[in-house]
Amino acid sequence: MTPAIVARIDRADPKLIQRLGECGVATVHEAQGRTGLLRPYMRPIYPTARVAGSAVTALCGPGDNLMIHAAVAVVHAGDVLVVATTSESIDGMFGELLGESCVAHGVAGLVIDSGVRDTAELAALNFPVWSRAISAQGTSKTIAGSVNLPIVCAGASVEPGDVVIGDADGVVIVPRESAASVVEASNQRLEKEARTRERLKAGELGLDIYGLRDVLAQRGVKWIE
Amino acid sequence: MTPAIVARIDRADPKLIQRLGECGVATVHEAQGRTGLLRPYMRPIYPTARVAGSAVTALCGPGDNLMIHAAVAVVHAGDVLVVATTSESIDGMFGELLGESCVAHGVAGLVIDSGVRDTAELAALNFPVWSRAISAQGTSKTIAGSVNLPIVCAGASVEPGDVVIGDADGVVIVPRESAASVVEASNQRLEKEARTRERLKAGELGLDIYGLRDVLAQRGVKWIE
Amino acid sequence: MTPAIVARIDRADPKLIQRLGECGVATVHEAQGRTGLLRPYMRPIYPTARVAGSAVTALCGPGDNLMIHAAVAVVHAGDVLVVATTSESIDGMFGELLGESCVAHGVAGLVIDSGVRDTAELAALNFPVWSRAISAQGTSKTIAGSVNLPIVCAGASVEPGDVVIGDADGVVIVPRESAASVVEASNQRLEKEARTRERLKAGELGLDIYGLRDVLAQRGVKWIE
Amino acid sequence: MTPAIVARIDRADPKLIQRLGECGVATVHEAQGRTGLLRPYMRPIYPTARVAGSAVTALCGPGDNLMIHAAVAVVHAGDVLVVATTSESIDGMFGELLGESCVAHGVAGLVIDSGVRDTAELAALNFPVWSRAISAQGTSKTIAGSVNLPIVCAGASVEPGDVVIGDADGVVIVPRESAASVVEASNQRLEKEARTRERLKAGELGLDIYGLRDVLAQRGVKWIE
Amino acid sequence: MTPAIVARIDRADPKLIQRLGECGVATVHEAQGRTGLLRPYMRPIYPTARVAGSAVTALCGPGDNLMIHAAVAVVHAGDVLVVATTSESIDGMFGELLGESCVAHGVAGLVIDSGVRDTAELAALNFPVWSRAISAQGTSKTIAGSVNLPIVCAGASVEPGDVVIGDADGVVIVPRESAASVVEASNQRLEKEARTRERLKAGELGLDIYGLRDVLAQRGVKWIE
Amino acid sequence: MTPAIVARIDRADPKLIQRLGECGVATVHEAQGRTGLLRPYMRPIYPTARVAGSAVTALCGPGDNLMIHAAVAVVHAGDVLVVATTSESIDGMFGELLGESCVAHGVAGLVIDSGVRDTAELAALNFPVWSRAISAQGTSKTIAGSVNLPIVCAGASVEPGDVVIGDADGVVIVPRESAASVVEASNQRLEKEARTRERLKAGELGLDIYGLRDVLAQRGVKWIE
Repeated sequence: MTPAIVARIDRADPKLIQRLGECGVATVHEAQGRTGLLRPYMRPIYPTARVAGSAVTALCGPGDNLMIHAAVAVVHAGDVLVVATTSESIDGMFGELLGESCVAHGVAGLVIDSGVRDTAELAALNFPVWSRAISAQGTSKTIAGSVNLPIVCAGASVEPGDVVIGDADGVVIVPRESAASVVEASNQRLEKEARTRERLKAGELGLDIYGLRDVLAQRGVKWIE
Repeated sequence: MTPAIVARIDRADPKLIQRLGECGVATVHEAQGRTGLLRPYMRPIYPTARVAGSAVTALCGPGDNLMIHAAVAVVHAGDVLVVATTSESIDGMFGELLGESCVAHGVAGLVIDSGVRDTAELAALNFPVWSRAISAQGTSKTIAGSVNLPIVCAGASVEPGDVVIGDADGVVIVPRESAASVVEASNQRLEKEARTRERLKAGELGLDIYGLRDVLAQRGVKWIE
Repeated sequence: MTPAIVARIDRADPKLIQRLGECGVATVHEAQGRTGLLRPYMRPIYPTARVAGSAVTALCGPGDNLMIHAAVAVVHAGDVLVVATTSESIDGMFGELLGESCVAHGVAGLVIDSGVRDTAELAALNFPVWSRAISAQGTSKTIAGSVNLPIVCAGASVEPGDVVIGDADGVVIVPRESAASVVEASNQRLEKEARTRERLKAGELGLDIYGLRDVLAQRGVKWIE
Repeated sequence: MTPAIVARIDRADPKLIQRLGECGVATVHEAQGRTGLLRPYMRPIYPTARVAGSAVTALCGPGDNLMIHAAVAVVHAGDVLVVATTSESIDGMFGELLGESCVAHGVAGLVIDSGVRDTAELAALNFPVWSRAISAQGTSKTIAGSVNLPIVCAGASVEPGDVVIGDADGVVIVPRESAASVVEASNQRLEKEARTRERLKAGELGLDIYGLRDVLAQRGVKWIE
Repeated sequence: MTPAIVARIDRADPKLIQRLGECGVATVHEAQGRTGLLRPYMRPIYPTARVAGSAVTALCGPGDNLMIHAAVAVVHAGDVLVVATTSESIDGMFGELLGESCVAHGVAGLVIDSGVRDTAELAALNFPVWSRAISAQGTSKTIAGSVNLPIVCAGASVEPGDVVIGDADGVVIVPRESAASVVEASNQRLEKEARTRERLKAGELGLDIYGLRDVLAQRGVKWIE
Repeated sequence: MTPAIVARIDRADPKLIQRLGECGVATVHEAQGRTGLLRPYMRPIYPTARVAGSAVTALCGPGDNLMIHAAVAVVHAGDVLVVATTSESIDGMFGELLGESCVAHGVAGLVIDSGVRDTAELAALNFPVWSRAISAQGTSKTIAGSVNLPIVCAGASVEPGDVVIGDADGVVIVPRESAASVVEASNQRLEKEARTRERLKAGELGLDIYGLRDVLAQRGVKWIE
């Protein structure tokens, strides 16, 4: 880790970001070949949380939020903070005051592989957060780290400017340069799913729609009436 | 595990199933001698989820939902899918499309010792699910398994046709042949609890109602005023 | 552990307790030097749960609630039950009936390093609970333990009569004799935070408010434009 | 769970049991279609532990070993105790004294989904144990349970008299009635593996031996030189 | 937590400490009424590790070992360092150099509710350590804490000067002032166990030695021949 | 993830690799600024395991080892296989036969964020493995993945050709291009540590060697004699 703060990053087209957010985590994850998903232990702090934005990354020491404050200095409206720590921690690195600061600067949300506190106040601010834990444990502001360098967050590689999508199902990262192609693949998937949904609602079986009776036969699965 | 799909199973009397559902998980678990409870890591995807139905069991490969599709082909209205995997996994083996398919066939709910996705959509469908995790991770449809053979799900043995009860406290299994006796024992327990509840609400102590002062004395617990 | 039940304990001034509750867990934890926090695995059973009261402690055997019943015999209105077990357990040691009994005696809430059941009913009673798990698993009433002796609960030391504060962020313990000084420190912190909040809402950066640009420079963190 | 102790059980042919033990856990697990494996959290207390024997099952209360004592009353020489608890526990339910008792009665080993203590002494006795945890936590002898009724242990169904195989890789259960066929399948697998081993030691690739180049091509995996 | 270093502490009689060490963790834990045991996740870094000594306590920030260095300044030969952190961490707070320093000052061992590194070198030094994790993660030397104030370590209360016993089964704490009575109780227990051991080795059943047949009958457990 | 197998990768100078291995995980991790460490849950399957080599990366489906077989086709003598899965799994993806194949091709060791089996046989082969779990669970050979593309393994980014160091303390990754500078920094650190070690062995305090008395004073830590 180089202790540095990179101010300027490239971002994806806002329309692509918006569309990826509409498609949702599960669809986008599938559309890009089942990649980019953060570990499922990352959960939203309130059930209706949704976000789509450009990743501004921060790497912090465990139990230290100095670099989150630094990150707020370089965000653009619509960005999503993506925070990891150099060793595992669940301390409450982010709370209401940082939430207010983020809202003032137009930050769209937070994804943090650590703990968060003041969750009731953050929910009242309508500021969406995905975290590993909820913890009131206080933290320091003294450890060097990085802003807008590549990080690993909850098992996934994140480059600054990548698109971050979060909803009730978790968080997925779309590499900036593939945002357009993933939108296209997502749209196709949604269209196809819409047709499949109608057939399933009409009572057709997945076995028939997906051609799975042959798979069962090939695998030697017997039907016993 | 025999790779087979058993189409016909015996089910308990629907009136017994309904009554067990009304009694709820904690009461039923107590009424049958504190047995049949799934591990407490099985949690509902929304707080008001409740279900009671006959178990249609499926054993899948980890990260593969082929046998869930097969199970939908043999369900009856009111059944509950109970799904386990051959090795531990939390991938998102069930989502909105399978939810629509289940609703179309009258499936009452899902109990799955793995992950589930599209949780907002499933909640909107009012389709209750108890799972080990929420994960958008995509899965395959290629691994042989079984439908309606005995399985172990979240630490509990489940036979096809057993009664499955789920609510905010978790999930409990009632063997099909003991459904009637468990209903009776549950009714008795609820009646007794109603009387106890009134005494407790009136301020009587559990120490006195349950005769625990003697237990404390026998165990050598001293009162220090 | 001495198997004993201590009936009389000293409590903090009710006005101090009330004020600590208004300040909330994160503020109080910070105000007393980042001490007293229970492990973050302690979670409320419903999102709006809040409590502040005097600790009545109970130490139980794993999967046994005999000493909770004993504790109810010595509580005063406004107390909070704080329960630990002699070895780790997540069985459902507390449910609706004990909840009714607690309500009848004016108990303000429960903090239990074990499992709880009947969570829907407890929420309907508006009885706040923080627990390690939700589990319907039934328990016994036979193992000796203690009431109102010092215990360790979820990693924190708790003396009988200490002030217990719980909210969406978790649970914190304030030693009885420091309640007044922690109220004062909390009030000062809230006043200071109110000023900081206004500056942050106006767009000032934490970097500037907290003097962190110097810290970054001292730590060798470079700005790359 | 019926509170009962079943004294007489059927056992597999000792020669088959011995041969299954020689084949080892991984081979036997594969030979019976990848079934019967206990959860990998079950670990031996010393690295060279190995066992093969007939399962005598015990279901205990959490933190209570009454039914282990009962089980020792019905074991035959060469049996393996397989112990589960009615709710999750890692207390030290088995130690040196029970180990001496087991050795006196010819018990070949212990598989316990809970904790064990006196591990140095048990290793000195050369008494192999697979457990979930090592814990000195003392337990009671008061809770009713069962001996030689079917149980679920560490995620696997175990019937009394089933063959239990344990080694450094974990523990696998072979249903008593399939012992002969699993020995045959294991022998075939070992013969085939011996041939494969020679080819691999000579430098042939698994890709070629198992025909995986076609699989890679079918899956669209490209070779980039 | 008061940020302070207390230089002088009272210690138990060295002969009592030595005898408690000979008795071992499981016996001592039982002899003092099944109290004082640290959580079973505390494991020795090599199988033959054993220790008995007086606790010198240190409370550190997560990922910071400043206060361990401070503790070495006040130890006496034969003491055991007992280290906890203010929030959960598994970073490698202790390694070979601190091990050499401890050996130079006669420290008998380390019990740390965090991570340790250089485990091969520490084993070569024959310096026994019980820890929560093994991790090479580097730590800082900057966070204030305490030495020789009461702490909670791995779920147990530890006062400076308490007796710390560690072996393959874990770690137990004996309050300084009860060292003599626990030695006596341990001796009695060992004598009684010696007699029981002979009877068990001769083939007598625990059922008969402990009078458990009556317990089984009272609990309604039936024998099925 | 692109489904591709990259045959040719750049490797670091073998002398640098050897030297990094001699320095060990903790020293190298510190020397490169406390970066590159895999999560501490990665443990060696035998205590004396040590390795240093060039990373050949493989990304597999959960419970599928197709891409490990593909990786063996492109390894050079001295390489270390570094394996991750697309979703979390602890199935036994690697065993004795793959171990024999690796030995035949000169592979120096395996680092796998999943399970491994036949651990006794792998230890007998003297083939070092660091894994997340030991599990006999069988796996398939059917899921597309990658070889020698960048991966995230146990929380760390790994590029093909990076240097992998493993010992009793865990696993650390050194980027290929910084191998020389990290060797130099490691050597300097070892020299400095050698001097510090002598002072510590002579009884000097870390407080004095590292100048920590001032730090304690600045932080307000008081000495109480």
